Amino acid sequence: MKYRVEKDTMGDVNVPADKYWGAQTERSRNNFKIGPEASMPIEIVHGFAYLKKAAAFTNCELGVLEEAKRDLIGQVCDEIIAGKHDDQFPLVIWQTGSGTQSNMNTNEVIANRAHVIAGNKLGEGDKTLQPNDDVNKSQSSNDTFPTGMHIAIYKRIVETTIPGVKHLRDVLDEKAKAFDDVVKIGRTHLMDATPLTLGQEFSGYVAQLDHGLKALDNTLPHLSEIALGGTAVGTGLNTPDGYAELVAKHIADFTGLPFVTAQNKFEALAAHDALVETHGALKQLAVSLNKIGNDIRLLASGPRSGIGEIIIPSNEPGSSIMPGKVNPTQAEALTMVAAQVMGNDVAVSVGGAQGHYELNVFKPMMAANVLESARLIGDSCVSFADNCAAGIEPNHERIDELVNNSLMLVTALNTKIGYYKAAEIAGNAHEKGITLKESALALGHLTAEEYDEWVDPAKMTGK
Amino acid sequence: MKYRVEKDTMGDVNVPADKYWGAQTERSRNNFKIGPEASMPIEIVHGFAYLKKAAAFTNCELGVLEEAKRDLIGQVCDEIIAGKHDDQFPLVIWQTGSGTQSNMNTNEVIANRAHVIAGNKLGEGDKTLQPNDDVNKSQSSNDTFPTGMHIAIYKRIVETTIPGVKHLRDVLDEKAKAFDDVVKIGRTHLMDATPLTLGQEFSGYVAQLDHGLKALDNTLPHLSEIALGGTAVGTGLNTPDGYAELVAKHIADFTGLPFVTAQNKFEALAAHDALVETHGALKQLAVSLNKIGNDIRLLASGPRSGIGEIIIPSNEPGSSIMPGKVNPTQAEALTMVAAQVMGNDVAVSVGGAQGHYELNVFKPMMAANVLESARLIGDSCVSFADNCAAGIEPNHERIDELVNNSLMLVTALNTKIGYYKAAEIAGNAHEKGITLKESALALGHLTAEEYDEWVDPAKMTGK
Amino acid sequence: MKYRVEKDTMGDVNVPADKYWGAQTERSRNNFKIGPEASMPIEIVHGFAYLKKAAAFTNCELGVLEEAKRDLIGQVCDEIIAGKHDDQFPLVIWQTGSGTQSNMNTNEVIANRAHVIAGNKLGEGDKTLQPNDDVNKSQSSNDTFPTGMHIAIYKRIVETTIPGVKHLRDVLDEKAKAFDDVVKIGRTHLMDATPLTLGQEFSGYVAQLDHGLKALDNTLPHLSEIALGGTAVGTGLNTPDGYAELVAKHIADFTGLPFVTAQNKFEALAAHDALVETHGALKQLAVSLNKIGNDIRLLASGPRSGIGEIIIPSNEPGSSIMPGKVNPTQAEALTMVAAQVMGNDVAVSVGGAQGHYELNVFKPMMAANVLESARLIGDSCVSFADNCAAGIEPNHERIDELVNNSLMLVTALNTKIGYYKAAEIAGNAHEKGITLKESALALGHLTAEEYDEWVDPAKMTGK
Amino acid sequence: MKYRVEKDTMGDVNVPADKYWGAQTERSRNNFKIGPEASMPIEIVHGFAYLKKAAAFTNCELGVLEEAKRDLIGQVCDEIIAGKHDDQFPLVIWQTGSGTQSNMNTNEVIANRAHVIAGNKLGEGDKTLQPNDDVNKSQSSNDTFPTGMHIAIYKRIVETTIPGVKHLRDVLDEKAKAFDDVVKIGRTHLMDATPLTLGQEFSGYVAQLDHGLKALDNTLPHLSEIALGGTAVGTGLNTPDGYAELVAKHIADFTGLPFVTAQNKFEALAAHDALVETHGALKQLAVSLNKIGNDIRLLASGPRSGIGEIIIPSNEPGSSIMPGKVNPTQAEALTMVAAQVMGNDVAVSVGGAQGHYELNVFKPMMAANVLESARLIGDSCVSFADNCAAGIEPNHERIDELVNNSLMLVTALNTKIGYYKAAEIAGNAHEKGITLKESALALGHLTAEEYDEWVDPAKMTGK
Repeated sequence: MKYRVEKDTMGDVNVPADKYWGAQTERSRNNFKIGPEASMPIEIVHGFAYLKKAAAFTNCELGVLEEAKRDLIGQVCDEIIAGKHDDQFPLVIWQTGSGTQSNMNTNEVIANRAHVIAGNKLGEGDKTLQPNDDVNKSQSSNDTFPTGMHIAIYKRIVETTIPGVKHLRDVLDEKAKAFDDVVKIGRTHLMDATPLTLGQEFSGYVAQLDHGLKALDNTLPHLSEIALGGTAVGTGLNTPDGYAELVAKHIADFTGLPFVTAQNKFEALAAHDALVETHGALKQLAVSLNKIGNDIRLLASGPRSGIGEIIIPSNEPGSSIMPGKVNPTQAEALTMVAAQVMGNDVAVSVGGAQGHYELNVFKPMMAANVLESARLIGDSCVSFADNCAAGIEPNHERIDELVNNSLMLVTALNTKIGYYKAAEIAGNAHEKGITLKESALALGHLTAEEYDEWVDPAKMTGK
Repeated sequence: MKYRVEKDTMGDVNVPADKYWGAQTERSRNNFKIGPEASMPIEIVHGFAYLKKAAAFTNCELGVLEEAKRDLIGQVCDEIIAGKHDDQFPLVIWQTGSGTQSNMNTNEVIANRAHVIAGNKLGEGDKTLQPNDDVNKSQSSNDTFPTGMHIAIYKRIVETTIPGVKHLRDVLDEKAKAFDDVVKIGRTHLMDATPLTLGQEFSGYVAQLDHGLKALDNTLPHLSEIALGGTAVGTGLNTPDGYAELVAKHIADFTGLPFVTAQNKFEALAAHDALVETHGALKQLAVSLNKIGNDIRLLASGPRSGIGEIIIPSNEPGSSIMPGKVNPTQAEALTMVAAQVMGNDVAVSVGGAQGHYELNVFKPMMAANVLESARLIGDSCVSFADNCAAGIEPNHERIDELVNNSLMLVTALNTKIGYYKAAEIAGNAHEKGITLKESALALGHLTAEEYDEWVDPAKMTGK
Repeated sequence: MKYRVEKDTMGDVNVPADKYWGAQTERSRNNFKIGPEASMPIEIVHGFAYLKKAAAFTNCELGVLEEAKRDLIGQVCDEIIAGKHDDQFPLVIWQTGSGTQSNMNTNEVIANRAHVIAGNKLGEGDKTLQPNDDVNKSQSSNDTFPTGMHIAIYKRIVETTIPGVKHLRDVLDEKAKAFDDVVKIGRTHLMDATPLTLGQEFSGYVAQLDHGLKALDNTLPHLSEIALGGTAVGTGLNTPDGYAELVAKHIADFTGLPFVTAQNKFEALAAHDALVETHGALKQLAVSLNKIGNDIRLLASGPRSGIGEIIIPSNEPGSSIMPGKVNPTQAEALTMVAAQVMGNDVAVSVGGAQGHYELNVFKPMMAANVLESARLIGDSCVSFADNCAAGIEPNHERIDELVNNSLMLVTALNTKIGYYKAAEIAGNAHEKGITLKESALALGHLTAEEYDEWVDPAKMTGK
Repeated sequence: MKYRVEKDTMGDVNVPADKYWGAQTERSRNNFKIGPEASMPIEIVHGFAYLKKAAAFTNCELGVLEEAKRDLIGQVCDEIIAGKHDDQFPLVIWQTGSGTQSNMNTNEVIANRAHVIAGNKLGEGDKTLQPNDDVNKSQSSNDTFPTGMHIAIYKRIVETTIPGVKHLRDVLDEKAKAFDDVVKIGRTHLMDATPLTLGQEFSGYVAQLDHGLKALDNTLPHLSEIALGGTAVGTGLNTPDGYAELVAKHIADFTGLPFVTAQNKFEALAAHDALVETHGALKQLAVSLNKIGNDIRLLASGPRSGIGEIIIPSNEPGSSIMPGKVNPTQAEALTMVAAQVMGNDVAVSVGGAQGHYELNVFKPMMAANVLESARLIGDSCVSFADNCAAGIEPNHERIDELVNNSLMLVTALNTKIGYYKAAEIAGNAHEKGITLKESALALGHLTAEEYDEWVDPAKMTGK
């Protein structure tokens, strides 16, 4: 491989000749060979591009950066956002916990790419832009990385998570409405209970997701607060007057999202409770999705020796050894995602709890986990909605068989003959293997007419 | 011990003669010898008393319960709420996951106590009230237990957690204001960084708690939704018309808290995402408190060989072997609480994720964890606030010594002479063990006058 | 209340006149009002008594403590171990993270109780024993608390956890043997699969518990290492020669358990990975128990509209509203315990990860969680074994019906006619609602004789 | 893109013309667009190649597969193990929870690649090998996936994790020995305590890792048990006699690792407690590494306003805004890894707890988390060892200054003059800001000669 020499305050470093990155990126590559390379989420790189552009515009408006430099920085940032330089960001999550090296990676790529755009050869001549003094002007890793991660996560949440969950919510809501009059047995403790409709059952799932979406939405204001303008420790040292508010406004404009400058920059650097908060809501959604996915596979279990009240789509052969088997594979993916998100929540919390003084140094790990959870939830909701939920159909025959057999219809008699006599009827039917009605009449607690009037599964659903 | 015979639908049971509980409570005592006895949180018992009273009033208003029975039930409930029968609830958390046995414990105690109030002898004569048909009228364990736990948790949150956190927040805020002009060194990565004021540092803690309180507040609407009226599976079977709304109104009146009937009763029985949601906010607070407690003990470390920038109160001898030692014991209690709450969060989530069909059967475990976390956070905030935070004083001498020595004051020169020359000054000072100013002048990058004007810790804080 | 005055190095303190504890205990009571009082596990207090006695004997043998003092200390320790002074330990978990205050509570109670035993009045005259100089001789909180917690946990594990799990293992093993020839349908992905015997199914549970017991056993050597002899920071300052080994030997003698002195005292004070390790095994058992409990309730679900392949004992009325309902309540308690233990594991890990320098100050919290998990697992295994597992019976009629209906018996044909043709037979049977045999013959892939020979559920189990 | 048609039991599917995978792989690609593509760990694919080869050899030896087919399968498996087909495995973790689709991906790639090796064109002519009937012979996804994941994880543990941790352990052990006589102040509760040597401090880290390695080693026997031979539900249906033991022997031979057939195949399919167990040990290591990394950064903090007792290597410029700053970046990467592993542990446990009947369907998620943790721990230990620990040097000047100043040297006087008088000396020194010796003499508790003889930091370390 061919190399060129780049330098930083510690000296010279050989860098692959065709790459835009510089000395500090290369040092990090060499010093942090931990896990697969380039694991730093690309969303964060793009988040950095938004903020670097915004900083350049702000610096220029406030008189500390020339227009030509602003335009060069802006142009490269637009290229990065467009995904043209994704291969210029080789660093890993497991670097310095402030993400300094990824900040410098961005600074170096912008400076070197601008150098080429300005008509120079990479690595030759005086640098058109200085990575620290120009691209990083009025910034520190300590305020850029949290800003980049807030941008990345906020975008992911509104572009992937919320639409994905809403889509599943809507598909389930359609089903809830379509199944509104399908009377079936209810089950509590996994045991036969009083009836409800299949639509009522599904309406519970919809309510869970509605509450989850509300909870996620509640976390967005904290997430919309960005640290930029705090620089090294939150005081805003080396920033021009009015910088923090203006740069937030530019980021809001460039992203189309309601970012504002953090009310307290010390909190925004030293703690990442905003990520803990947002991930808490993602975890709540994971908990809900685990319940939903689990229920669907239980209801669809069979086809002949399970519950079998619903039929789910057959998307693929289910077994490499058992011919003709169809499995609830989408529910399995969904619940695996739920388990992962529950784990990620602990990683985020453990990182969040361990900031020291003016800086939390678990930033890349925390951000990567939130981004992963946000994507997995959004993607798996869409996959589950389209490949499973949308195709769910009731197995009417099976549903009717199970509800009509149930001893728990006896509950309707509590208000007529009292709990004790009702229990006696159910116990007698269970013991003798007869129907409730047979048992009721045999015990003489009511007449056949009364039984037929009082014990009506459909009425018992309250619909 | 003397016993009397009580019976339920399964037959006769010997019950201690002087206890108000009945057959089902006694069965549960015998069948669930898991952990210390009577571990079911008493707050939930009191929550049950509120809802039983509300149900009686509602049933009466809707014409399904006589006034005399209503009044008897109400009177016993008031006694329970006043703490007069705490020893009548011997059951454990680790019982049926619906809490049925604690519901029946309440029903039985109310019925038997009412029997005595009505002038009868315990265990003699016809029961004045039937536990199931009267006390439990229009109810099921499946809607009462979640209602009782929402009442218990909501009360604990607003009576203990929020006031406790607010108190700590206010104490820290006073300190932030009092220390507003105490210029000190900042630290990032635990390493010397640019200066800020001690007040700014504390303001970050205040901001964390403000955000945490907001997050907790956001969860209260979900928690205010009560399941009562759903009965066995969410359909409201065996409840009179208008029951759910009216009983919620009574609970709101009796507790003085804004409870409302759950929009979707199926969700309210089958999922306890409201608890997951609330505990998520408690966990966020725990994360914040861990950071705060950790910072305080780091800042107070010493007295001679640590950081020593602040002085915390000496509340007790610190060591059984090292005479004269004073330890940050309140910070230790606080961070132990934080760890516990982070663990409880997983227990709550794991329970919440595993509901089946129409019922989640991890109710007592989930509720007990949320109650514990809510109390521990509230109590530990008060303890930390009063016994530590309120007494914190700056160690001015030490603070001044550390900030004036720091090489990171060089950062102020970035915008004057550029990052590279500034780095050279710092590096030279570090290597030679001289002051920044000496190094700056030796390298000839600026004059003594420029140095004195530009490098001023107080100015660097932006105050 | 009447008080007497006790003093420590910080001055005078009023202490309830009838209590043996002294100034430092009382300070802690006042300074740490966090959660319910006296939450410090009594097992740890008893563990302290073992080590205080062992220290007294060792100090005496090594010539630094008089025999009379040794005997007094030993006598009080025996009283404490016998449970006679449980009400003398009012402190909470949420105190100093080294447990210093509980160490001093023990020292004070021993000194004051000895004073009385020696014929003096509590609070009057010169102290017979000094809490620090005599009772705490050759000790520090920093090595006594970890020693006390290792003793407490080790005892709990071998007295409650292991016997409890083994008991459940044995009950399940009996069932596995009894059900060895009960051929039933297997289920994978919750869907019908090839047959196995009910005994084979239960043998998997036994294997899980065997592995879990092995894993727990693997952690005992680390747990058997005790810190005593390290004193303040691990160097053993102020201990006589040979002390560490001898005191460990005495503890081993007094407890009858194989305690040894820790190979590295610095690790034994600064880290509590032994607790992390032991709790990791408890968590593995919790994971296993969740699977087992969940399976049992699924298999027992019904009675008419679920799986219903096994019948579990009816221990109590299952529902306060649904007469005659029987629920898998023991499985619910078991799985709630599992969730709690999974949460406790995080608390223990978070605490374990945050030691600083020479001391981990999350000791009481970590120890309390390990003790809770150890007890809950042991107790719930016994409860589940005796009240549920031991009474499990197969529902032969239901089992036969479900296995004979299953389409997955077709798998037996793979090796005869190939996967594709076998899949065709299953698919055709499913589509048309006919039996496998009908489908096989209709498609002409084999003869009736071949079918009957090849498709035999019992043979398919490999028994 | 060009496509060819592949078919499975559900019909035709278009597959990219140049890929070896077939219909079922393509279905999975389309049905599970969750997260980044090809996320299924390549180690598992390689694990599959080992087992497919072993199955072919075993089937051949047992007379159910021709030699020619065995050789073709073996040849392709060798190519896969050599990494030549990594781009043929496009599936994600978030597929069916049994990993069936990755099993079929392997079967299809082997069959199609063999077809080409045999001289045919991809997609043309009769298939040389059938994916199900030949490549998957005597197997099911349900026993292959767990086998593949055990192989992958075992290899990763012994090739990356254990060597990485051992390397760090050895580097720290060298330092412990090199620093054996560097007397420094100890710190408990972050506060000044009695002295120890820097070598003693580091020996505690070594002991932690020794215990962690032992704990990890303890889990390998369970991990060495492989499920292969259980087929669909654990009964071994459709396998020839002697298959399970022989195939395990082949896998052991091919991998050079001590794999054995699982004692109980039902456990091996339905539960993955072996992964829970192994990850528990990884989590213990993470807890230890967090402590170690945290200590190193605290000890290295400064350079002028922190603890500064050790000097760590400067590997990169530490700050994009603060010139000359050097940060403990390796410790940050290490502790971020620790947090991630603590989170992964919960994901693994949550997945492990939720198996149903004969199958756990959280396999890919569980395996991916264990593999990630195993690699991150191994890699980060090497990175931390080589880029930080190996270069640690004591800052003797600072160490001496801090130990000599400390008031806790007074502890040496306990055994000479008693705890109370010693405390008085320390308190007086602290209050008046004088040295211990000055205070001791001023109070008249001992002579200057006694002081000098008794208070000697080096002696206090017990070395």
